[in-house]
Amino acid sequence: MKITLLPGDGIGPEIVTATVKVMDAAAKKFGFALEYDHQLLGGCAIDAYNDPYPEVTQKSANAADAVLLGAVGGPKWDNVDPSIRPEKGLLRIRKDLGLYCNLRPMKVSRFTAHLSPLKPERVENTDLLIVRELTGGIYFGTHNEAAMVDGVETASDVDLYTRPEVERIARKAFEAAKVRRGKVTSVDKANVLAESRMWRKIVTEMQAKEYPEIELNHLYVDNCAMQLVLNPGQFDVVLTNNIFGDILSDEASVLGGSIGLLPSASLGDGTGLYEPIHGSAPDIAGQGIANPTGTILSAAMLFRYSLDQQAAADAVEAAVEKVYEDGYRTPDLFGEGMTKVNTQEMGDLVAKAL
Amino acid sequence: MKITLLPGDGIGPEIVTATVKVMDAAAKKFGFALEYDHQLLGGCAIDAYNDPYPEVTQKSANAADAVLLGAVGGPKWDNVDPSIRPEKGLLRIRKDLGLYCNLRPMKVSRFTAHLSPLKPERVENTDLLIVRELTGGIYFGTHNEAAMVDGVETASDVDLYTRPEVERIARKAFEAAKVRRGKVTSVDKANVLAESRMWRKIVTEMQAKEYPEIELNHLYVDNCAMQLVLNPGQFDVVLTNNIFGDILSDEASVLGGSIGLLPSASLGDGTGLYEPIHGSAPDIAGQGIANPTGTILSAAMLFRYSLDQQAAADAVEAAVEKVYEDGYRTPDLFGEGMTKVNTQEMGDLVAKAL
Ligand SMILES: CC(C)[C@H](C(=O)O)[C@@H](O)C(=O)O
Ligand SMILES: CC(C)[C@H](C(=O)O)[C@@H](O)C(=O)O
Repeated sequence: MKITLLPGDGIGPEIVTATVKVMDAAAKKFGFALEYDHQLLGGCAIDAYNDPYPEVTQKSANAADAVLLGAVGGPKWDNVDPSIRPEKGLLRIRKDLGLYCNLRPMKVSRFTAHLSPLKPERVENTDLLIVRELTGGIYFGTHNEAAMVDGVETASDVDLYTRPEVERIARKAFEAAKVRRGKVTSVDKANVLAESRMWRKIVTEMQAKEYPEIELNHLYVDNCAMQLVLNPGQFDVVLTNNIFGDILSDEASVLGGSIGLLPSASLGDGTGLYEPIHGSAPDIAGQGIANPTGTILSAAMLFRYSLDQQAAADAVEAAVEKVYEDGYRTPDLFGEGMTKVNTQEMGDLVAKAL
Repeated sequence: MKITLLPGDGIGPEIVTATVKVMDAAAKKFGFALEYDHQLLGGCAIDAYNDPYPEVTQKSANAADAVLLGAVGGPKWDNVDPSIRPEKGLLRIRKDLGLYCNLRPMKVSRFTAHLSPLKPERVENTDLLIVRELTGGIYFGTHNEAAMVDGVETASDVDLYTRPEVERIARKAFEAAKVRRGKVTSVDKANVLAESRMWRKIVTEMQAKEYPEIELNHLYVDNCAMQLVLNPGQFDVVLTNNIFGDILSDEASVLGGSIGLLPSASLGDGTGLYEPIHGSAPDIAGQGIANPTGTILSAAMLFRYSLDQQAAADAVEAAVEKVYEDGYRTPDLFGEGMTKVNTQEMGDLVAKAL
């Protein structure tokens, strides 16, 4: 099976290297073969090709069974032309591969819960999945850059959804809820936005017609932002649009005490893309101390959703659990009574635990 | 001075009645006269006029020096036609009075900090002010309701800002920072939105030209949603657009342990509007137990910004502090060793403490 590796910038290369060890160990154990193609995305691609998503990367990604991404961006590219910024590479690969469905599971790990900014009783048992629409909405509507309109400098963006776009992402949320706790919370701003009113209408129709066994409720995005802090345990699957999903998933990502453990999957109808939630952490890049766990768990999602290797996915997750159970920690999570390891050692340990 | 009172729905009437006692006591003490005009807004106005912002309310508000609002909405009006929903009244009065500047201070009270969902060390010393643009952006751009476009059901909204709109709200933020801790954090999504790129450019220009003494930094909205939970104490003034302000201010509102204490002001070039952050709480309406503190502190803001009665504003805030210091609490905040009081008693106590 062909995997395109996009280590990207900052700590990206280190965490991807550590993760490949785990992927290789899993492939060996479960009897499948992985073939890697290393390509550039983001800042490193700007440096090499003056393009954050160069053609050679596009070709590789489109031909692959799955893409594993480290992280992109960093201060070095803060002042490049907006049209070729590192994030543009990310937005373009999402669109190019048709990755309309972003899955961000946030299960509070017992190994990090004590580090949560929330009081323990507020986060215990939190296990939610944000299903974010990723190739539509205000991200991909027309962007009218600042220009004079009737003598006044004006800029605008269009937040647009079509019925098929809403239906396919809602379906992913309902299907995910089926194999979880059977509850979908759809988040919108239907008291203000036309796009949200259509969203709410379609989601409501689908639940009634196709998913009567799923419990559906609707929350306004402002209320959801509040509820995530007050009582994150109330959520099972959270379904939302591109921009609200961006905001809510970042907010949710810190509730469990460490963003370093969180994976994500971006799915379409073809190649899927997998990446940790965290960024490129330029401040610690090159030191070999970054936590590769979010990337390793993203590889588990890759096994599950793109390669249909459920047993390998489960085994990787269990191996991570075991290594943490045994007290190994990268410096970000190191504490009293633990054994400190670096990025590659963490990869080796998880590979061995397999 | 003329005050339009809009008690609204749910607990609105009770908390406004309690607040009027405080306003009267302050007027008497500081030697100014207040003349009240009671009008309807929201659900109650739909019931009476089939219009959430009837003409008679419009006339009164436009003629007033300031408007004090309780809360609007409730399940009773969940199924009325979208065009006349209670919130529509709120959106229309904001636009009608030109209330482009929404101020939402969030200072963690030592009387509620222990109730925060965050660990104490995370919220202590938090004292921030969200300056939200309130009459522009995606709230007031064209809303294209669901309709067939090229054979596909489509809905969209336009997020639009003009330079003068950005300048006037940024100016409010810079001016507010001057009399606070001198720091403005401007929140946008400039890596994706054209509107945000213009916003960032204008705010940056203004700081350089007109407010060099103010420290300015920029945050992406997703990062800000995260930082508010991780370290709310880092913020002084947070400047943002209408939709991001809606989300972030609701998120911030729960960090201090009680939303019941938080006031807000919506300002334009004429009449200002003041209201608590919390909603109409239909579940406890009519029981006389709602906490009027957010409304009372909104009246203090009314004295400060619309009536130029600084001493009265300070005195109301000090009186609230004193009553809490003395251990009086409405049921929402009642605990061991406190004296339980109802809505009107709380109003009386604050009036007396003046
Ligand atoms: C980098 C940025 C364009 C991106 C987004 O907004 O989608 C990021 O915040 C994310 O959530 O993956
Ligand atoms: C009721 C709703 C339209 C309103 C808004 O979104 O502005 C409310 O959430 C607020 O923040 O005052």
